[in-house]
Amino acid sequence: MNELPQAVQINEEGPREGFQFEKGPISTARKIELVDALSRTGLKQIQVCSFVPPQNVPGMADADEVVKGFAKRPGVRYTGLWLNEKGLQRALASGRLDVKGSIALTASAAFLQRNQNRTLKDNIEAQRSIIRMYKQNNVPVERGSIMAAFGCNFEGDIPPSRVLELIQQVLELAAEGGFTIKVLSLADTMAWATPVSIKRVVGAVRERFPQLRLALHLHDTRGMGIANAYAGLEMGVDIFDASVAGLGGCPFAAHKGAAGNVCTEDLVFMCEEMGIETGVDLDLLIQAARLAEEVVGHPLPGSVMKGGSLRALRNKLRAAA
Amino acid sequence: MNELPQAVQINEEGPREGFQFEKGPISTARKIELVDALSRTGLKQIQVCSFVPPQNVPGMADADEVVKGFAKRPGVRYTGLWLNEKGLQRALASGRLDVKGSIALTASAAFLQRNQNRTLKDNIEAQRSIIRMYKQNNVPVERGSIMAAFGCNFEGDIPPSRVLELIQQVLELAAEGGFTIKVLSLADTMAWATPVSIKRVVGAVRERFPQLRLALHLHDTRGMGIANAYAGLEMGVDIFDASVAGLGGCPFAAHKGAAGNVCTEDLVFMCEEMGIETGVDLDLLIQAARLAEEVVGHPLPGSVMKGGSLRALRNKLRAAA
Repeated sequence: MNELPQAVQINEEGPREGFQFEKGPISTARKIELVDALSRTGLKQIQVCSFVPPQNVPGMADADEVVKGFAKRPGVRYTGLWLNEKGLQRALASGRLDVKGSIALTASAAFLQRNQNRTLKDNIEAQRSIIRMYKQNNVPVERGSIMAAFGCNFEGDIPPSRVLELIQQVLELAAEGGFTIKVLSLADTMAWATPVSIKRVVGAVRERFPQLRLALHLHDTRGMGIANAYAGLEMGVDIFDASVAGLGGCPFAAHKGAAGNVCTEDLVFMCEEMGIETGVDLDLLIQAARLAEEVVGHPLPGSVMKGGSLRALRNKLRAAA
Repeated sequence: MNELPQAVQINEEGPREGFQFEKGPISTARKIELVDALSRTGLKQIQVCSFVPPQNVPGMADADEVVKGFAKRPGVRYTGLWLNEKGLQRALASGRLDVKGSIALTASAAFLQRNQNRTLKDNIEAQRSIIRMYKQNNVPVERGSIMAAFGCNFEGDIPPSRVLELIQQVLELAAEGGFTIKVLSLADTMAWATPVSIKRVVGAVRERFPQLRLALHLHDTRGMGIANAYAGLEMGVDIFDASVAGLGGCPFAAHKGAAGNVCTEDLVFMCEEMGIETGVDLDLLIQAARLAEEVVGHPLPGSVMKGGSLRALRNKLRAAA
């Protein structure tokens, strides 16, 4: 058996992923309620919102209010997302977020062309100006990401060699700006990965860049999320993005291409049952997942929130014995 | 990396699991339509129905008609389920099923007591009379099963040593009856397993009983189904029960304790993408999964039926290139 990490860090992205994705209006108060419920679970990092133009993402129009409103809990890092300097300024102005920069390259040329009308080379230039922005604002950059690292709906399979090249570019871009990348996130943006490709790519990255701590950002569109996380754990990966209740996805396939992040409580369940510490109280997290379902007003794809924790069952059996 | 099998056998249980579980009436014609759709996918074994008293399971009242009605496809084994001699006689009388016996012991004493008012010892006696029934009807017995092999809602964790004892009893019971068990199925009846416990139990069974071919019957109640199947594959397991579209489960948690089998097309997707042959045409299977949803009249939990196959995407990209 491969060696699993003793502990993992889970970055909760549910509020940002979910409220960005949901079509119906959700009141600011309920968004804050969910962030507060997540704060009580033991999660160490929660992404609260994204600072994007409201005309693009109506669900984020109240991002500043959400950030003002939640109760900060000591020991929890609250983060946000932004796509340009204006967004970054809003995050900084809030004074309530842990603002860190990151450099993201996309492994698929076709995806970049289609979504941002950029070549792989243009994208490197774009990252240079983002790094300048971080420097000017005294925002540290320690994280790099490779998007579509396992495959792309518009390009197909992505060779691991390209992922390695892009990581090299990320490291060089950071170095140019005087930064050192410590964490490298591999994102399965369009859910092409399987446990075997996770192991193949993570193994190649580890061999070439042993100094990097690796993270996985896994989408569950094809039901592989938890299995891919397990493959990552087997390779020693110990940072995972996840989304409470699977927020950001939809079991009805009403949204074409709906692709939730791997479900936080399912991931916590797996880790804890396998003896890997998450620091999270699963039963409180299940409560937060049920609240998420209530807040969005429709069923969400998480499983353990329906099946229940085994700790709760074991306690019941112990009490009855 | 551990060595994965080159090919797996998937036993489709969707029609039996699903129609047994669904509350609404489904016409016999539509049941047959689904079996016929599954027959065209390349699946080699399909469990069509269970022969149980209609007052207990109304959805199986038309089992004999379903068995009469589907179009047998060469190379496919069609099976049924029964719980007593009357059921077995119905299966034999149909003349259309591959009728084989199996010996099933349950690893949880509390579960047995609660559900069948039997002790572990009583259950062995009960299996003796079942073996006599098979002998009298000239039905071969080559398969054994251990239910609740990974944990039980009424007893808690199950020690692997008990699973080993029970397998020994299964082998002895079979030998008494003049049968030899070739396949041993470990069932995670109440969804307690994680990849680590799958590896622990499968590893222990393999070491003690190297002559047995192992099968896994995995429920997905806590979202671990596919990850557990992957852990099984890593241990060389090459027979899996599965249920098209996740029939038998329900994403709404409307049924308390709803526990679908691992979803067939998600399992086929994972295997094929990892280079493990299933013999199944995934795109035809996705069509059958969508038909299953239509037949039961509500969303089912499968993911790949919503996310789509990568083969289809690759073909599209190739055609456009």
